[in-house]
Amino acid sequence: MEKVALTEAFATFDEQWSPRVAGELNGQAVKLAKVEGEFVWHQHDDADELFFVHDGALTIELRDEPDVHLDAGEFVVVPRGVEHRPVADEEAQILLFEPSGTKNTGNVESELTQTEEKRLE
Amino acid sequence: MEKVALTEAFATFDEQWSPRVAGELNGQAVKLAKVEGEFVWHQHDDADELFFVHDGALTIELRDEPDVHLDAGEFVVVPRGVEHRPVADEEAQILLFEPSGTKNTGNVESELTQTEEKRLE
Repeated sequence: MEKVALTEAFATFDEQWSPRVAGELNGQAVKLAKVEGEFVWHQHDDADELFFVHDGALTIELRDEPDVHLDAGEFVVVPRGVEHRPVADEEAQILLFEPSGTKNTGNVESELTQTEEKRLE
Repeated sequence: MEKVALTEAFATFDEQWSPRVAGELNGQAVKLAKVEGEFVWHQHDDADELFFVHDGALTIELRDEPDVHLDAGEFVVVPRGVEHRPVADEEAQILLFEPSGTKNTGNVESELTQTEEKRLE
């Protein structure tokens, strides 16, 4: 049973918008990602998605309601089917909690689409 | 869509060993708990359980392998069926991820068993 220390884990990779699976439980995955700039608008038709900010700040832009701004130590759940776009003015370190196998760009194909699931090393 | 700020959320309750549901997604719950002292030995036969420390430190005692010590910013997943006992020398603020409805004392009835699910207010 291996613990994960977030600060150390984030230091093991540099790639942005490329989540690393850091743990799995009950069919769900805990993923760590470094993000900066604007992601693509997308939605997950069959997956609720939790965003937690470990370091920095992240804005979840939404089509039909006010944006949600998250600072470190804050989280929000984006329900399935809700179109959203994560945006970070400066690099942020975030934790995602979502069903294992959830594609990062949801219903959209983009140059940011991750074709292969990556694991924390 | 309401965000949760952990530090503010933990300030809304004092009771120890009494998790508050702070969010739900994909049949799973995010729960916040203040803990201090020794919990009861127990296991969850059908639920993996993630422990994340927001503030303080927590030790997960295990029967058959070394204890796992978690400081703030660290997490571990205790697989289903693994007997464990959380222990905190001083009050710690922790976050749990587990299936909605998971009983805090698992297979054991104790004075610490929470009979009613509580929500963050």
